[in-house]
Amino acid sequence: MKALVYNGPGKKSLEDRPIPQIKSATDAIVKVVKTTICGTDLHILKGDVPTCAPGRILGHEGVGVVDKIGAGVTQFHPGDSVLISCISSCGKCEYCRRGMYSHCTTGGWILGNEIDGTQAEYVRIPHADTSLYPIPSGADQDAMVMLSDILPTGFECGVLNGKVQPGANVAIVGAGPIGLATLLTAQFYAPAQIIMIDLDDNRLAVAKTFGASATINSGAGTAVEQVRQLTDGRGVDTAIEAVGVPATFVLCEDIIAPGGTIANVGVHGVKADLHLERLWSQNITITTRLVDTVSTPMLLKTVRANKIDPKRLITHRFTLDHILDAYEVFGHAASTKALKVLIET
Amino acid sequence: MKALVYNGPGKKSLEDRPIPQIKSATDAIVKVVKTTICGTDLHILKGDVPTCAPGRILGHEGVGVVDKIGAGVTQFHPGDSVLISCISSCGKCEYCRRGMYSHCTTGGWILGNEIDGTQAEYVRIPHADTSLYPIPSGADQDAMVMLSDILPTGFECGVLNGKVQPGANVAIVGAGPIGLATLLTAQFYAPAQIIMIDLDDNRLAVAKTFGASATINSGAGTAVEQVRQLTDGRGVDTAIEAVGVPATFVLCEDIIAPGGTIANVGVHGVKADLHLERLWSQNITITTRLVDTVSTPMLLKTVRANKIDPKRLITHRFTLDHILDAYEVFGHAASTKALKVLIET
Amino acid sequence: MKALVYNGPGKKSLEDRPIPQIKSATDAIVKVVKTTICGTDLHILKGDVPTCAPGRILGHEGVGVVDKIGAGVTQFHPGDSVLISCISSCGKCEYCRRGMYSHCTTGGWILGNEIDGTQAEYVRIPHADTSLYPIPSGADQDAMVMLSDILPTGFECGVLNGKVQPGANVAIVGAGPIGLATLLTAQFYAPAQIIMIDLDDNRLAVAKTFGASATINSGAGTAVEQVRQLTDGRGVDTAIEAVGVPATFVLCEDIIAPGGTIANVGVHGVKADLHLERLWSQNITITTRLVDTVSTPMLLKTVRANKIDPKRLITHRFTLDHILDAYEVFGHAASTKALKVLIET
Amino acid sequence: MKALVYNGPGKKSLEDRPIPQIKSATDAIVKVVKTTICGTDLHILKGDVPTCAPGRILGHEGVGVVDKIGAGVTQFHPGDSVLISCISSCGKCEYCRRGMYSHCTTGGWILGNEIDGTQAEYVRIPHADTSLYPIPSGADQDAMVMLSDILPTGFECGVLNGKVQPGANVAIVGAGPIGLATLLTAQFYAPAQIIMIDLDDNRLAVAKTFGASATINSGAGTAVEQVRQLTDGRGVDTAIEAVGVPATFVLCEDIIAPGGTIANVGVHGVKADLHLERLWSQNITITTRLVDTVSTPMLLKTVRANKIDPKRLITHRFTLDHILDAYEVFGHAASTKALKVLIET
Repeated sequence: MKALVYNGPGKKSLEDRPIPQIKSATDAIVKVVKTTICGTDLHILKGDVPTCAPGRILGHEGVGVVDKIGAGVTQFHPGDSVLISCISSCGKCEYCRRGMYSHCTTGGWILGNEIDGTQAEYVRIPHADTSLYPIPSGADQDAMVMLSDILPTGFECGVLNGKVQPGANVAIVGAGPIGLATLLTAQFYAPAQIIMIDLDDNRLAVAKTFGASATINSGAGTAVEQVRQLTDGRGVDTAIEAVGVPATFVLCEDIIAPGGTIANVGVHGVKADLHLERLWSQNITITTRLVDTVSTPMLLKTVRANKIDPKRLITHRFTLDHILDAYEVFGHAASTKALKVLIET
Repeated sequence: MKALVYNGPGKKSLEDRPIPQIKSATDAIVKVVKTTICGTDLHILKGDVPTCAPGRILGHEGVGVVDKIGAGVTQFHPGDSVLISCISSCGKCEYCRRGMYSHCTTGGWILGNEIDGTQAEYVRIPHADTSLYPIPSGADQDAMVMLSDILPTGFECGVLNGKVQPGANVAIVGAGPIGLATLLTAQFYAPAQIIMIDLDDNRLAVAKTFGASATINSGAGTAVEQVRQLTDGRGVDTAIEAVGVPATFVLCEDIIAPGGTIANVGVHGVKADLHLERLWSQNITITTRLVDTVSTPMLLKTVRANKIDPKRLITHRFTLDHILDAYEVFGHAASTKALKVLIET
Repeated sequence: MKALVYNGPGKKSLEDRPIPQIKSATDAIVKVVKTTICGTDLHILKGDVPTCAPGRILGHEGVGVVDKIGAGVTQFHPGDSVLISCISSCGKCEYCRRGMYSHCTTGGWILGNEIDGTQAEYVRIPHADTSLYPIPSGADQDAMVMLSDILPTGFECGVLNGKVQPGANVAIVGAGPIGLATLLTAQFYAPAQIIMIDLDDNRLAVAKTFGASATINSGAGTAVEQVRQLTDGRGVDTAIEAVGVPATFVLCEDIIAPGGTIANVGVHGVKADLHLERLWSQNITITTRLVDTVSTPMLLKTVRANKIDPKRLITHRFTLDHILDAYEVFGHAASTKALKVLIET
Repeated sequence: MKALVYNGPGKKSLEDRPIPQIKSATDAIVKVVKTTICGTDLHILKGDVPTCAPGRILGHEGVGVVDKIGAGVTQFHPGDSVLISCISSCGKCEYCRRGMYSHCTTGGWILGNEIDGTQAEYVRIPHADTSLYPIPSGADQDAMVMLSDILPTGFECGVLNGKVQPGANVAIVGAGPIGLATLLTAQFYAPAQIIMIDLDDNRLAVAKTFGASATINSGAGTAVEQVRQLTDGRGVDTAIEAVGVPATFVLCEDIIAPGGTIANVGVHGVKADLHLERLWSQNITITTRLVDTVSTPMLLKTVRANKIDPKRLITHRFTLDHILDAYEVFGHAASTKALKVLIET
């Protein structure tokens, strides 16, 4: 089968690989129908993710059809249309039982990282019963691909952890795909304002069409003042960091109101300054989270009920044969204006 | 009347001052019966608290008897025995209505800071109806003094924010008065372990008698390893910072288990490193808080029901005439082994 | 001044009364600009509310302009445009401090009940600082009248207590003004379905235009089956009772899914059967609540941000001179199709 | 093997049965070491549990040693010492993923009900990985038996659902084994008072030794007055029903304070009166729950840390050969003063 393979920092290729086989009774083999590329895949290609060894098939998002199941799989059958979660969850360990699937002792984020992933014609899914979700009949498959990772990430790490509330003021720092997914799901809770902050005017313009009540280009260096103006001088109740660098995290510290919450979504490579000399008395909460995908059933219900249209995140489409082009487009988002690129097998 | 006055960095004196008068209809004048000295008073004397001007009578803790009330005071009458909260709360502003009294727009921590305080024979209490608490008949007055600040601070900023749970593993970094108050109130929730960490063996010995399940002297540089050994290698569910310097905050980052909470109690003068490069994926929560004293009614009930004995924090006793000696003892806690010093008028 | 006076069961009249005066330092006199009639006023007129004595001016909703303030009022000044809460709250008692203003020991629902109310040219508001809310400049006054009672009632007693969640299935039993206010505010949380149940096809038709995803006329006796069909046989996650009779409460018991919540909003005159022989093992929660109006600031923000348009509840308009006609129209809602009737002074 | 078999209403016998075999890959066969009898077993024997057919081996509590495992079992191995949960949980279905194991679509309370149970030398445990718990080395086996059902039932249905808080007033109606288990676990949260109410003076005397702060024999008909006296006239914050008849549920309605919670633990055979005509405005919460045993890991930690001594519930001991005598003693608790009877194989 065709598969996109990571061959060490800076190197990738579309290769021919054997179709994966059932290794454990709880595995399923899924024929991938649609997949996509995540910002994390670009991190791997830069060599930033040491757990991902050369030779690995990338990809942790996608929808497909169950092809084979292990003897222990009870919730799915060959032919079932399924959503693949980016997080593998055994359902048995202490963390899974607490709903912290991201820290599953035999799972977590392993797909396209420690085991072969979804950017291929077939993928082996461990702990299939608790890592796949049935796609409701009639559901739009494109929308479903957004539920593998990006929507639960924005929703759990940003919106739920950030305790977005009706009438509240929210700022989302970073209007890339994850920031926009956060923007979409934040609207479940009817906040008064959602202020999007980014350096890219195109993304801010997209944010406006996705429901942002205000946008700020932080390049001018006046983001803090602008947020204060928009919030009667008080700052925001919820600040969501969706970039992953120290400056944007500190910006969240600068705009948070007393009693507010900073919810970190970004993947950070270095430490940040925590200004406890100012914040110790401000009654704030800071959260971090690797997505657990525990909200996937809830998100499936909101999509089924047309409360959200995640397909809007898709800007480009490719076939698996042209996945290298897809990487090219996705990797140059500033010029191509790519958000999510859909890859069909 | 006699009063302990701050006369600028490094300077204090016991002076004669006029008895305070009602300034606003919601004021009460309280005859102070017992007061105490807080670590924050030492900060003021170092010149670290710019809001506190020379000439200020210090002190924000105490019990007393209502002497006079303004025309608008309805909950108290002259002769009532009262607990003075360290936080003044108007009960009307947006923050007070949300239970965030610490950020009251006309109150907060002003006593012995922006207005004259309790280390005197009399004190004026603004917003008296919502800043004083009736002392239950038969209650021990000494114990009550601990409820002005130190107990609600440990309980709210440490225990409640830290989400201490039955069966959980808790570490408290800092075994000074605040850390010990946190230790006492953490036991309301039956955690499996409370590990106290400090540099002072005497304080750790006291912590043992106050209910710590284990103690670690962090001077040896092996605190992280010791915590891991005590927690099956996983770290603690709740880490409470009760010192206020970067090193102890980072220690909390080093010992927190995935899914855990770091509750900051300490007053910080400088920023700390937040190791987001490790913590972004660990599903942790960090909280800060200036005590709101919203839990004072609950704490009064636990004292009344003998669920806690806060009097144990008192190590030394003085009369107001000897308050300079009391400062001397409290300011040299390492040698005097002072925790809280009680001052009686 | 003109005032609508309750003269004992079945009797009311528009009378001339003296303008109310400040009685306590915390009072304000408000010149009423707009008021409305509540279902509770009809209960009083039937003689069902023993706390309301003959001679009482009715009404507990409205907006107006502050005319005079007592010496202790600090948050409002003559000329301020204000929203009058149906609940008077002292801000000082144990219940107020816990956010349970409905049980304020010197307030609660007293307006138009134990003291004279808002269906008059002027009204005395006790505990003014904590019972009035400033109307944001530019806000629609008609919409504001809906925030005195009906919106916080639907939101707090129904939506918040009912824990309405994104993706959830919700049923609201009763499509009168309160049920419709609940429907409007339930949409803050993006539930998958809101099923409205009533006996009146007109109200159900209105519910459709207000955002109901399905409507059921329970007159046919098949409401339970219809709810099950709409919810894959499982019942609803949240059932909100907004009628106040045993049959509708039992209907909620019949349609609630395991793990669900029944939130009672209705005012009940008699007991209901609680089918514990079925429900004891169903992990359900039942809540009751007299509105606290603790959510009024949040609701003001949602109205200001155009997240909700409460004015849609207003079907008829009268001047105070014609308030008897307004009662006539409101009292015969089945034929007049009245929801809320606005009365302007 | 020997097994206690239900042979229809009123009939039971100790019979010889074949040792159970693995039926599904996720099964384990456990050699029972200790088991006990539950009040529910008596209900079955009265014919009150239609899901339990004649021929069934009773029992849903116990500890033992894993004897055989199915091919899909990964968390346990033969020889492991295990705690058997009364609730079987697949870990995969929607309810299990929400932590509502009691409603597992292929589990729930089936042991000793729909499938053969633990009052035998061996038992087959379905969904073994998620229905057994490892017994910590050194743990007291007798104490562990109390964690199969009675402790999580009291804790989850009573204490957690009842939101027991430090400083709160709690009443537990019913001082049988479940009420006493609730009493033990309520103390995790340091309530000010725990008032035990029962008709049996012996059980009330036991309750005193288990930590009750007050006891009331409700036979005198003055329980409501006595509770009010103990609570400054206000009633209790939490009322826990641990009997299962209408009168005791209504007693909870009579003693609950405004804002309080009634947590139902009892198994009810008939409906009860819900006095909504009084309670609609009292801001109360009522909960029901079939134990989920989701708190078992937490309870294991509290036992391991000596925060609770559940062994105190054991009053009598028998060998499996004498289990009929054990039923006799347990079935006549009023005269034998039995709480839990331990049966060793």
